[in-house]
Amino acid sequence: MDRRRLSQLFFKFSSHRIRFLSPKYEPSTPISGTIGRFRESLNQSCKAYSGSRQGFPAFRAPNLSVNHAMQLRRICSGTIEVQRNPSFSEITSDDIQHFVEILGEKNVVQDEDRLLAANTDWMRKYKGSSKILLLPNTAEEVTQILQYCNRRCLAVVPQGGNTGLVGGSVPVFDEVIINLGSMNKIISFDNVSGILVCEAGCILENLDAFLANQGFMMPLDLGAKGSCHIGGNVSTNAGGLHFIRHGSLHGNILGLEVALPDGTLLDMLGSLRKDNTGYDLKHLFIGSEGSLGIVTKVSILTPSRPSSTNIAFLACKDYLSCQNLLVEAKRSLGEILSAFEFLDSDAMDMALTHLEGVRNPLPPSLYNFYVLIETAGSDESYNKAKLEAFLLSSMEDGIISDGVVAQDINQANSFWRIREGITEALIKAGAVYKYDLSLPVKNIYDIVEEMRSRLGESAKVVGYGHLGDGNLHLNVSTPIYDDAVFTKIEPFIYEWTSKHQGSISAEHGLGLMKANKIHYSKSSESVQLMASIKKLLDPNRILNPYKVLPSSMLFND
Amino acid sequence: MDRRRLSQLFFKFSSHRIRFLSPKYEPSTPISGTIGRFRESLNQSCKAYSGSRQGFPAFRAPNLSVNHAMQLRRICSGTIEVQRNPSFSEITSDDIQHFVEILGEKNVVQDEDRLLAANTDWMRKYKGSSKILLLPNTAEEVTQILQYCNRRCLAVVPQGGNTGLVGGSVPVFDEVIINLGSMNKIISFDNVSGILVCEAGCILENLDAFLANQGFMMPLDLGAKGSCHIGGNVSTNAGGLHFIRHGSLHGNILGLEVALPDGTLLDMLGSLRKDNTGYDLKHLFIGSEGSLGIVTKVSILTPSRPSSTNIAFLACKDYLSCQNLLVEAKRSLGEILSAFEFLDSDAMDMALTHLEGVRNPLPPSLYNFYVLIETAGSDESYNKAKLEAFLLSSMEDGIISDGVVAQDINQANSFWRIREGITEALIKAGAVYKYDLSLPVKNIYDIVEEMRSRLGESAKVVGYGHLGDGNLHLNVSTPIYDDAVFTKIEPFIYEWTSKHQGSISAEHGLGLMKANKIHYSKSSESVQLMASIKKLLDPNRILNPYKVLPSSMLFND
Repeated sequence: MDRRRLSQLFFKFSSHRIRFLSPKYEPSTPISGTIGRFRESLNQSCKAYSGSRQGFPAFRAPNLSVNHAMQLRRICSGTIEVQRNPSFSEITSDDIQHFVEILGEKNVVQDEDRLLAANTDWMRKYKGSSKILLLPNTAEEVTQILQYCNRRCLAVVPQGGNTGLVGGSVPVFDEVIINLGSMNKIISFDNVSGILVCEAGCILENLDAFLANQGFMMPLDLGAKGSCHIGGNVSTNAGGLHFIRHGSLHGNILGLEVALPDGTLLDMLGSLRKDNTGYDLKHLFIGSEGSLGIVTKVSILTPSRPSSTNIAFLACKDYLSCQNLLVEAKRSLGEILSAFEFLDSDAMDMALTHLEGVRNPLPPSLYNFYVLIETAGSDESYNKAKLEAFLLSSMEDGIISDGVVAQDINQANSFWRIREGITEALIKAGAVYKYDLSLPVKNIYDIVEEMRSRLGESAKVVGYGHLGDGNLHLNVSTPIYDDAVFTKIEPFIYEWTSKHQGSISAEHGLGLMKANKIHYSKSSESVQLMASIKKLLDPNRILNPYKVLPSSMLFND
Repeated sequence: MDRRRLSQLFFKFSSHRIRFLSPKYEPSTPISGTIGRFRESLNQSCKAYSGSRQGFPAFRAPNLSVNHAMQLRRICSGTIEVQRNPSFSEITSDDIQHFVEILGEKNVVQDEDRLLAANTDWMRKYKGSSKILLLPNTAEEVTQILQYCNRRCLAVVPQGGNTGLVGGSVPVFDEVIINLGSMNKIISFDNVSGILVCEAGCILENLDAFLANQGFMMPLDLGAKGSCHIGGNVSTNAGGLHFIRHGSLHGNILGLEVALPDGTLLDMLGSLRKDNTGYDLKHLFIGSEGSLGIVTKVSILTPSRPSSTNIAFLACKDYLSCQNLLVEAKRSLGEILSAFEFLDSDAMDMALTHLEGVRNPLPPSLYNFYVLIETAGSDESYNKAKLEAFLLSSMEDGIISDGVVAQDINQANSFWRIREGITEALIKAGAVYKYDLSLPVKNIYDIVEEMRSRLGESAKVVGYGHLGDGNLHLNVSTPIYDDAVFTKIEPFIYEWTSKHQGSISAEHGLGLMKANKIHYSKSSESVQLMASIKKLLDPNRILNPYKVLPSSMLFND
């Protein structure tokens, strides 16, 4: 590495970056379809058939057609088979009329194009067949919808920005979609404490832009920031790029307002840093993927925005060097280290091949691994000098093979674009099998190499992710979905992860994709307790069914 | 302030400090009492009388004497009245024999002196009448005890270092005491990730000393560190002195092993930074004060130990200056700020009067408020220069009236001794009514002044605490407990806190003291859900009864 280049290229830049190009849902678009007026009558109540809060009746509404009852939903090639729960009602014209009375016509969407978008995840891998999309404007409207759906035993899928990667935010069958995009108001911000209170439908990037003007920032950042909602971030316990610095949402979320499946509005919207009065229930909803309640408001602690941010893009000859670099970065950069991301050369090739305008800032084809390091602090000259000293010493020790430091905002954006663009590049490349593993850092790359040797020439195996958090995104790319490839990946990858005390979902959640795989990472006693809590909060199991927990534990009792 | 003094007194020192002098429980002391051998027979099972998991039987063991059934426990002057739940069995010789078979004789304690210590909290404010203290050595032994107690409907109180301040860790009546002090092994430490796994009975200070040798530190620190157990810290969601830097245990605890009331061992002992597989159940047990399960093992993320720590002890003329100083400290010191504590002049007087060897490092009687600021970072010269610049600028702005910076470990200890010693000084001063409030920073000192004007000459009102976290410790000191004083404090203080959107327990928990006060800080829907979760996990309500939640919600259905 040219030492002069490294030491001269430091430059302060803002942390505003290129955003992820995922399809945006725009709830304010006028509705083109018309909705007829229907008779208001409810013939049956799901509750009336339910003997106890924990029981679930073999209930079927009189006008329920049976075609759904035995329907199997087969997603992609050989991945998931799930049966519609026959106890759920099907939506009727009376139901639609009732929703119109709650929300007004324009917020009850039956337009085919808009329904198609809301039924489909952004990877176009999971697709439901919901006939209705509801757009509440207030938490009270959400509770009215849920109270009604619970009574009628209508299944519901809550939806934020619909940027999830495990099929958690789209219907599996005909669930009623409740999208919170219209609930996007900032309620309060305290610039002494840095505490922000807002509605769940606020887009992450918009919140961060608002905070930038106040000298603060959101404690999480991810590729989908231009589309994802804070309510979805909370519900999936999103991790992202600054986890190494600001930690989990369990540490940053101070309060929530949540609509429970029975229509109760649970006010836990405290905005205090400390509050030890009783069980801290909000944590149940952080990461439960909308299966226990719908988050309607969020109170979050936001850190001061650093006045100085620097980014280095580095090359390492092998994985061990990446690992050593991480240890050194934590030791030497300490409190200013704000991101430590890595990608292998296959991930780099993917980005270079499929993303427009992306180029490798280092001499191509020489290196096996790339690391992106970000530092952020309150003092520009110190921050800069500290990173520089660290990079020079790592280079002298042979841990880094080459590297550049961004000298302006454009260069910084271009570095981040490589790392953040890999997901998009993989989608463009063809079919993709996505895995999001948490592993002890020393084991992380072993599974990528094992998978490569299992799959040979039949697929490209790509490894990248948040090395600083022990989080690997392992992706298998093939031209089309292929059962032969799939059976070589699963269950092997889950078994391997389990054997190495890893987690089969570091940050993406389980959704539909991995609901039946939970036993690879959680003890049977834990899963049993989760199911008991689900039954306690959602006795009719209407909320985000078929996700998170195995359906066999919820629908067969 | 003498600018020269401030700028010359910087000195690096370690963060090892004087520890809090609370009575230590020593489980390894030989047992002096003898335990007879009894017949092994169980006449009744609590479960057998229980119709359902959620129901609670009007069960009374045949040999249950009725004197407890109507007994009221009156703690201190006019504070708490609570009735023993008549459904709980009383301990018999058969029970004792069974415990001896599980634990061995020396771990089943009936010696009066040791029982007295275990029955009494360290403030000597709460006192139970348990006849038995159990000292398990393994998690499996804890589960065997719980399984038996649950079957026999014997109430249980889990106990760690017994340093709590709300009567949460001692029996109210005759509950079986399970003290985890013998379970004090470190299981593993990973010096790449900083993840420590240990048993629940490890003393916080011992863990920190172990980590110091590895270049790491515990993310929490509190006055009771020399006695409190990490299991108790987790169960009470302890906050402490470094909360402003390292945040809540909800963010730092990575995994737990917990023995449930029915004897199930819940393995959630992950040691990964990220794991989004299902509901994150461990959070239910963080801060639930041992009422849902007994924490037996802990996995915790520990930060790198800073190579440089500095402490300044400062004076401010009024509360507004303290508040302004906090805003400036967060802005200017940013990532190196690791403590921001305050005390008023009454708190200082208390420390000076009742603690041996404590002296005010600043000219006495001139100032109304004192602030202790600690910075910690990975670079000594930078850390020092940054604090110095901040202090000089705050002095020029008139926010600070005077100040000194510790120049060695002794001086640092003496500064911390003032702040940490206040609790001990208050106990020595006589009777003390302790309140632990979380409030918006701007309102914090209003309640101290209101309380002073309400109480006049009848009591001394002392304000101090973790200003950086919005956490006030308001203490009312009187020569003896006095109903007339008490009725002027409560319920006023809770009503005032509730009106100002505060929490009536920032970090101490509710325990016995505030179980019936939960409604001041939590919505009725939230409290109802907490009670439902308690009933789900502890259908016989044996675990830490009368604490956290109002007994009326748990024992009257």
